[in-house]
Amino acid sequence: MAEAFFDRLRASAQARDSVLCVGLDPEPERIPGGAAGAARFCAGVIRRTHEYAAAFKPNSAFWEQYGPDGWKALLDVREGAPEGTLFVFDAKRADVGHSSAAYARAAFEALGMDALTVHAYHGADSLAEFTAHVDRGVYVVCRTSNPGAADLQHLDAAGRPLYLRVAALAERVNAAGNVGLVAGTTAPEQVLELRAASPLPFLLPGIGAQGGDLEASLRAAWNGDPAACLVNASRSILYADDPGAEAAALARRMRAVLAAA
Amino acid sequence: MAEAFFDRLRASAQARDSVLCVGLDPEPERIPGGAAGAARFCAGVIRRTHEYAAAFKPNSAFWEQYGPDGWKALLDVREGAPEGTLFVFDAKRADVGHSSAAYARAAFEALGMDALTVHAYHGADSLAEFTAHVDRGVYVVCRTSNPGAADLQHLDAAGRPLYLRVAALAERVNAAGNVGLVAGTTAPEQVLELRAASPLPFLLPGIGAQGGDLEASLRAAWNGDPAACLVNASRSILYADDPGAEAAALARRMRAVLAAA
Repeated sequence: MAEAFFDRLRASAQARDSVLCVGLDPEPERIPGGAAGAARFCAGVIRRTHEYAAAFKPNSAFWEQYGPDGWKALLDVREGAPEGTLFVFDAKRADVGHSSAAYARAAFEALGMDALTVHAYHGADSLAEFTAHVDRGVYVVCRTSNPGAADLQHLDAAGRPLYLRVAALAERVNAAGNVGLVAGTTAPEQVLELRAASPLPFLLPGIGAQGGDLEASLRAAWNGDPAACLVNASRSILYADDPGAEAAALARRMRAVLAAA
Repeated sequence: MAEAFFDRLRASAQARDSVLCVGLDPEPERIPGGAAGAARFCAGVIRRTHEYAAAFKPNSAFWEQYGPDGWKALLDVREGAPEGTLFVFDAKRADVGHSSAAYARAAFEALGMDALTVHAYHGADSLAEFTAHVDRGVYVVCRTSNPGAADLQHLDAAGRPLYLRVAALAERVNAAGNVGLVAGTTAPEQVLELRAASPLPFLLPGIGAQGGDLEASLRAAWNGDPAACLVNASRSILYADDPGAEAAALARRMRAVLAAA
């Protein structure tokens, strides 16, 4: 059996002294050449940033918008990446058990991804179909980075905010130690609250274009484990004049925060 | 602009005197020939059932498990279906606004689907990216048909079960009249409660292999509008010896329930 995802992520982060994750979200209006152009563009970004990035995070939506060619392009990018490059497939899947099992096969077998983001709304039996792939990581969407996050996630759910209930459910399905949480950097207070409530590894999106607070969120999430604190940046690196320099600078900023934490 | 989805669904249901939706969930272990085999198989099912089915519902998970070829196969099935055949893409997508906009383009433009299922967890701004496609339908996942549904959905959320909060949020984004709810037939009591709380059209999965209660759920959901009460069956039709006869029989059973309601 392959090494556990979070062990591989820890090794990747330590080798680079970096908790940076680079989001691969190609936009047809900004990248010429359709799906094949997107694949070439993202392969170039990986080449220029992989020495600074612990992992890469393709968001499924951006590949799907190209239609069937988009999935082919994503698979090409995955297969063309340097040996050992870690891919977190940000697809936010969830369905009843039978269907979640098929989503898990799609992400982990057909596309060969190392980890996947999922929704918890269907409950433990649905999540278990993903976590059954014990050498892959499963990040449960917990507190999102968008303005509408509070609509449901902040509701008082039997005495605690719903996102804390989601975090507790995620822990329930963590028997194999392969479950993490998605917590947006636009809400550092909630990141802090989640860290106090849960020992699970975090994936932290929302810095850059979405306006997240990198320093406050990273300090809030930090527990001494570089696999527990993966910070994603997408547009600010993808569309930088020099993605490598931008990734290196971001990784350096993160290191400085952690050194002082 | 095209006619609104729920108007098209109503016309389709009335023309066939049927509220049946046929799920298109191909399984590689049961259908030979890989993705192309799945496409041929499902095209055959559509041909034999479309005079009894108001709509078809491909579940994205089952197509994605074939990898890029699966998306191509799904597009082939969609494009090869008889003119005017309605497709509800059961993909349960949701992300922050920017990404949800890309998911909406994927479903409605790249794949040409008539409606889509989505998760509400990200809140109103995320849902609005889907509902902005005003001639398409958006079914919000509300009360699911699996055993784990109660884990989060039945939590008391500020005085009401979470699924009722989701239903209320769905109504908030229904300015264009293109929003519906997914409510599982395995929970007819919750279907009844949702119908009392919400005038939105329902998509009712879970009969057949999942053991849902067709009669009780249909009676609970019925409000006199055939577009508001779409009942899905997947495996029990797909893998029947005679899918056409099975679909006709199911549509007849549904008609009998509605005639007595």
